[in-house]
Amino acid sequence: MLHFDSDYMEGAHPDVLRRLVETNMEQTTGYGDDVHSREARRKIAEACGLDDAEVHLLVGGTQTNAVVLGALLRPWEGVVAAETGHIAVHEAGAIEATGHKVLTVPSHAGKVAAGDVEALFDDWAGDANREHEVRPVVVYVSQPTEWGTLYTLDELRGLSEVCRRKGLLLYVDGARLGYGLAADTTGVTLPVLAGLCDAFYVGGTKVGALCGEAVVAHRGVLPDGFFSYVKRQGALLAKGRLLGVQFDALFTDDLYLRISRHAIDMARRLARGLTAAGYEFHIPAETNQLFLAVDEATLERLSRIATFGFWQRLPGGRTVIRFATSWATRREDVDELIACLGR
Amino acid sequence: MLHFDSDYMEGAHPDVLRRLVETNMEQTTGYGDDVHSREARRKIAEACGLDDAEVHLLVGGTQTNAVVLGALLRPWEGVVAAETGHIAVHEAGAIEATGHKVLTVPSHAGKVAAGDVEALFDDWAGDANREHEVRPVVVYVSQPTEWGTLYTLDELRGLSEVCRRKGLLLYVDGARLGYGLAADTTGVTLPVLAGLCDAFYVGGTKVGALCGEAVVAHRGVLPDGFFSYVKRQGALLAKGRLLGVQFDALFTDDLYLRISRHAIDMARRLARGLTAAGYEFHIPAETNQLFLAVDEATLERLSRIATFGFWQRLPGGRTVIRFATSWATRREDVDELIACLGR
Amino acid sequence: MLHFDSDYMEGAHPDVLRRLVETNMEQTTGYGDDVHSREARRKIAEACGLDDAEVHLLVGGTQTNAVVLGALLRPWEGVVAAETGHIAVHEAGAIEATGHKVLTVPSHAGKVAAGDVEALFDDWAGDANREHEVRPVVVYVSQPTEWGTLYTLDELRGLSEVCRRKGLLLYVDGARLGYGLAADTTGVTLPVLAGLCDAFYVGGTKVGALCGEAVVAHRGVLPDGFFSYVKRQGALLAKGRLLGVQFDALFTDDLYLRISRHAIDMARRLARGLTAAGYEFHIPAETNQLFLAVDEATLERLSRIATFGFWQRLPGGRTVIRFATSWATRREDVDELIACLGR
Amino acid sequence: MLHFDSDYMEGAHPDVLRRLVETNMEQTTGYGDDVHSREARRKIAEACGLDDAEVHLLVGGTQTNAVVLGALLRPWEGVVAAETGHIAVHEAGAIEATGHKVLTVPSHAGKVAAGDVEALFDDWAGDANREHEVRPVVVYVSQPTEWGTLYTLDELRGLSEVCRRKGLLLYVDGARLGYGLAADTTGVTLPVLAGLCDAFYVGGTKVGALCGEAVVAHRGVLPDGFFSYVKRQGALLAKGRLLGVQFDALFTDDLYLRISRHAIDMARRLARGLTAAGYEFHIPAETNQLFLAVDEATLERLSRIATFGFWQRLPGGRTVIRFATSWATRREDVDELIACLGR
Repeated sequence: MLHFDSDYMEGAHPDVLRRLVETNMEQTTGYGDDVHSREARRKIAEACGLDDAEVHLLVGGTQTNAVVLGALLRPWEGVVAAETGHIAVHEAGAIEATGHKVLTVPSHAGKVAAGDVEALFDDWAGDANREHEVRPVVVYVSQPTEWGTLYTLDELRGLSEVCRRKGLLLYVDGARLGYGLAADTTGVTLPVLAGLCDAFYVGGTKVGALCGEAVVAHRGVLPDGFFSYVKRQGALLAKGRLLGVQFDALFTDDLYLRISRHAIDMARRLARGLTAAGYEFHIPAETNQLFLAVDEATLERLSRIATFGFWQRLPGGRTVIRFATSWATRREDVDELIACLGR
Repeated sequence: MLHFDSDYMEGAHPDVLRRLVETNMEQTTGYGDDVHSREARRKIAEACGLDDAEVHLLVGGTQTNAVVLGALLRPWEGVVAAETGHIAVHEAGAIEATGHKVLTVPSHAGKVAAGDVEALFDDWAGDANREHEVRPVVVYVSQPTEWGTLYTLDELRGLSEVCRRKGLLLYVDGARLGYGLAADTTGVTLPVLAGLCDAFYVGGTKVGALCGEAVVAHRGVLPDGFFSYVKRQGALLAKGRLLGVQFDALFTDDLYLRISRHAIDMARRLARGLTAAGYEFHIPAETNQLFLAVDEATLERLSRIATFGFWQRLPGGRTVIRFATSWATRREDVDELIACLGR
Repeated sequence: MLHFDSDYMEGAHPDVLRRLVETNMEQTTGYGDDVHSREARRKIAEACGLDDAEVHLLVGGTQTNAVVLGALLRPWEGVVAAETGHIAVHEAGAIEATGHKVLTVPSHAGKVAAGDVEALFDDWAGDANREHEVRPVVVYVSQPTEWGTLYTLDELRGLSEVCRRKGLLLYVDGARLGYGLAADTTGVTLPVLAGLCDAFYVGGTKVGALCGEAVVAHRGVLPDGFFSYVKRQGALLAKGRLLGVQFDALFTDDLYLRISRHAIDMARRLARGLTAAGYEFHIPAETNQLFLAVDEATLERLSRIATFGFWQRLPGGRTVIRFATSWATRREDVDELIACLGR
Repeated sequence: MLHFDSDYMEGAHPDVLRRLVETNMEQTTGYGDDVHSREARRKIAEACGLDDAEVHLLVGGTQTNAVVLGALLRPWEGVVAAETGHIAVHEAGAIEATGHKVLTVPSHAGKVAAGDVEALFDDWAGDANREHEVRPVVVYVSQPTEWGTLYTLDELRGLSEVCRRKGLLLYVDGARLGYGLAADTTGVTLPVLAGLCDAFYVGGTKVGALCGEAVVAHRGVLPDGFFSYVKRQGALLAKGRLLGVQFDALFTDDLYLRISRHAIDMARRLARGLTAAGYEFHIPAETNQLFLAVDEATLERLSRIATFGFWQRLPGGRTVIRFATSWATRREDVDELIACLGR
C-alpha cells in the first residue's frame, strides 16, 4: 500500500533529527532562551530579510493561529478569512475559544480576494450600527491555501495594499509555506512575503520537523505581553530547544527550501501521471496537494493501491480526494502509483 | 417629525409602569426571589401551556442569547443560525465571547430552512474530520426574524422535527415575539411555539416593558448551575422585581398580546398606505417592521417628515429603510405619515 | 416584621420614579444616545469635577466590574483585590469569565493596604519568572467596602500614590458610593475620589435607582472600543434612557447625596440603639451596613422581630449578622427595632 | 560550571531518542491514531492497573492542566488548589483563560490538607449566597508538589475520601510523578495513585521525554467531546506519534521508574553532602528538588561553581535557592558540587 494521505506521515527530516541527536545531552535553559533557539530565530529573521523581526517558536498550527490572533485582537475585534480557511472550519473553534469571531468572505479556490476584504471593511465602516458588529482588524490568508492554491505576487500585493489602506493587519498562515515558496513562479520569495504582511508563520510540522511553527512579526505588531500570553495559552514549551534545534537545522544551508522543492517535484511528477491517465483535477494543482474528482469505481480501485484523503462528496456521486506529497515522498512510490493508475 | 425608527423608542406601557409605581415601596428580597417575579414566572409558564417550564427573567436580548446559548453549549459545540441572524451579525461577538462559534446557513428572507440545518448537520456528521470541527448542537431562529418575517406553523414543525431527529436543540429568539404571535395566521400560538422548541424567550423590551426578556425552557434543558451562570455573566439583577413586576403586568389580562395586536394593526395600516402610494417593499411586510427600497429622492423627501432606520445600500443607488411600529404607535402618526407619503 | 436585609429592598426613590413616569412616552433613540442619558453623563462629570471624564451607564454592579476590568486588562494581566472583595468572592467568577485572574491581598476589615499592593507588585516585578505569572495591572477597591468600612482620605491617597508610582490603575467599586460619601469625615468628596483614581462607578441600584451604575473614567483610560465591548458583554441596554432618566434625577438638586445622608443618619441611630442595648459590633460601624456578632439566643430573638442578613458563623457558636439601612429606611422602623432590642 | 537549574535541561533519555530515530521514517496517520500512540496508551493504562482508563497524550504541563480542568468544569465551577499550586501561581492565568477561578487553600509545604478542602466545601455548601460564588468541583494537587514534597498514602487517601464524600473530583498534576513514585516510602505506587484520583497526568517532559504528558482518567470522567476540546485549545499534535513513541519507550521495561530512581538517588546523595556541609534546608528534601536557605556570601560563592534556581527572598537577607536533579544528572557532577560546597 502506498501512502499519500498527508504531508505529516513521517517524523523529521534526517538532517533535523541528526541535530536533535547531536545536541541531546547539552544542558540548556528552558522556554526558548537557549543558544539553538536564539540561533534559529536569528537565521529565520535573516532568511526573511527583516532587521526588525520578532520570531517566536511554537508547537503546532492551530495553536499558532489562535495565539497570534488572540494576541493581535482586542475582545471586540475579529479576523477576516475565506469561508474555507483553516481557522474558519478545521480548528474546532480555537479562534472563538479566544473570544473572537471569524468573519468570512467567499473562497476563490481557497483564496481571499482583496476586493472582498475591501467590501467587507467598507460595509462595516459605513454601517450606522457598526459598533454593534465585530470590527474587522486582521485578515487571515493561507499560503498555500487549504486547497493547495497559491496567491500570486500581484494578489498578495493587492491584499497588502488594501490592508494598509484600511488599517487592517495581514497575517499569513504558512503551515505549508515551504511548498508554496518552492512552487511559486511569480516572485513570492520569503523576504517578499515577509515584507507584504504584518505577521506570518513558517510551518515546520509539515516541512521537515517533528513539530514546530515559527511566528515572524514586524517589531511592534505583537503586544509586549506576548511571551506571557503564549504561556497562558498553554503554548510555551519547557524544552524550547526542541523547536530551536529543529528550526536551526531547517534554516541552515537552505534545507527548508531544498526539501520543499523535492515535495513540489514529486507533486508535479504525480500530477503529470494523473493527467496522462485521464484523471480530473477538482482544483488545478499548484503545490503539494492534488485534489481529484473521482467516480465510485475509480475511488474503489484507488483505495486498493494507496491511501489518501477524503475531502467531500460532490453532487452526482463523485468524491473529491487528496493526494499529498512531502519532503519525505519517495520517487519510486510516485512512480509505482502512476504505474497503477491505469489499471 | 414623526418617529418610526424602532420599536423601543418609548418607556413602558402605562399599565406596566403603573404596576411599578404601585409596588415601588414594597420591600422584597432580591435576585428574582420575590412575589412578583414568582407570579410572573407562573403566569408565563401558564400562558405557554407548560407544566414543566423553567422561566428566568433577564434584562436584554443580546444578554439573553449569550447567557442561554453559553449555558446550553459545551466548549466544543456551536450554534447554527441564519447568516442574517442577530447573533451572527449584530451582537458584537457576544456568542464568541462565551467561546462558541456561530455556524451560518443561508437566510431565506431572514429564515432558516429545515433542509439547510439537516444538510449542515449531515455534512458535519459524515465528515471524517468532524472532531476537528465545531459540533452543531443548537439551532437559533428568531420569530419574527430580523427582517420582520414569520415562520409558519409548518416551517416551525419542520425545524423542530429535524432538530429532534438529529439530536439538536431548537432555541427561538423572541425579542419581538408578541408581534409575531399577533401577526401569525398559521396557528403559531404561544403554547404551540413552546411545544415545538426546547427553549425560547418572550421579549419584553420591545413589547411594553422598560427592559426585560423572559427565558422559557423545558425542564432539564438548562443546566443545574444556570442561576450561577447568569450571575457570572453579569446578567443577574439585584432588584429582580423590576422584571417580575413588569412581566406580571404583561401577562395579566392578556396585555402582552393585546398591545402586540395594536402594533400589527398599525403596521398593516401603514403598509396599506405605502402600497397605495406606490412604495416598493424590499421584503414582504409580515409583522411590525416594514422594509422599503427607496431611491435617493424619496429617501431625502421621507427624511424631512419622519425618522426611520437605514438598513443597507442596494446596488444601483437605492437604499433599504425600515419603518417600525410598536405598542406605542399612535394611529394619528400613522395617518399623518401616510398623508405625507405622496407629497 | 421589620426588614433590614439589604439596601435594595424597595424600588426607586420617588423623585426618580416620578421622572420615569413624566418622561415615559417621550420618543428617544436607543443605546444611551438620548437627551436624558447625555444630561445624566454631563451632570455626573460635573459633580466629579472632571473636564475629561468619560461616563457610561450600565445596569448592575457585577456587570460593571466585569465590563470595566475586562476592558482595562489585556489577557495576560490581572486585578488586585482584597480577599474579601466582591470580585474575589461574590460574583460567581465573573472576572475569570473574562479571562482574568483576581490576585488577592489581605483584607483589613475589607480594605486593601497600600503597602500590600506595593509588596505584591514588587514581588512580581522582582521575580525572575514573572512572565509565567499574571501581571498585576489594576487595583480594585470598594468604597465603602463589603464590610461597610471606609477608606480615609489618607488611605486613598496612599493607594493612589502607590498605583501611580508602579504604573497600576486604581479602580473603585462604588456600589454604595453615596453612603460612603455621606459618612466620610476625612475629606473624601466625589471630586476628591475622582481625582485619586483612574476609573470608578457611582452605584445607583443601592442608592435610589431601580437599577443602574455610572462608570466614570478619565479620558484615555478606557479603550476606544469600549462601547462595542459593552455590547459584546450583553451589557448594553436598548432603552438606555431607563438609566439616563434615573441618573439625571439622582444628580439633580444633589438628590444622590441627600438620600445617602438619610441612610447614614438611620444607620447611626440604629447603631446607637444597638450599642446602648449592649450589642457587640463584629466590625466597627462606619456606613449603612452594621455587622453584629450575636449568640444563638439573641439570633433567635432578633429573627422574630426583623429580617437581616446572615454573614458567617464564628468559632464558638456565634453568628455575624448584618443590618442594612438605605435611602428608603423609615425612622419609625428603626425606632421600633431599637425598642425591641432589649426584649 | 555545574548545572542544577531544573529537571528539563537536557533532551530525551537516550532510549527514548533511539526509538524516535528508529521509527522516524515510518508512515503513520496523525493526531494520535498511530500504532505507537495506541501502544503507549495501552502500556500506561496497564501500568496504572486500570481496565477502564482513558489515556490522552498532550505536549506540556500548563497545557495539560488547562485542557483537563477546562474539560472537567462547567463555566460556573472552579478548582481548589494550594495557594502555592502551579495553576495558582505559575501558569500566567491559563486556568482563568478557560474561564475558571482557582480557589485557594493554605499550602502546607506545598500540600493541600484534606481538612482544608472539606472546610472550603462546607463553607460554600452552607452559605446562603453560594449561588453567587464559584462552586468548588475539582481538587488539584501536585505529586510531588512544587516544593518537592510528597503526599503520603494516608494523606492521599484522606483527600480522596473527602472528595468522594463531597462529590468533588480529585486531579493530580504529575509533572514530576516519576520522581514522586521513586521517592515514596509509604506505598503510593502508580496503581494506588490511579485508584485514588479521578484523573491525573504522568509527566514526560521532566522525566525523560523531549516533551509530553500522559493524561489518565477513569472512563466517564472526561466529557465525550474531549478530543475536540483538545483541538480547540490548540493542544492536538499533528504528528501525535512524537508523543506515542516516547511514552511507549518510557513504559517499556519500566524505563520511566528506573530513570526516576536515578534522579532520586542523585538528589539524596546531594542532600547528604549539603547536610554534611552544614547547609540549611528551607523545606525538608523529599524528591529531586532541594530547597536551601542561604545567606548572601554563600549565594555568591555557590554562584561561582553552579547554576541553580532562585526561589524567593526571605526576610533578613537570605535567599531560597533550588537545586534539581533529574534522570540525566551525572554522579560525577554531584560529587564535584559536593566537593566544592565547603570551599
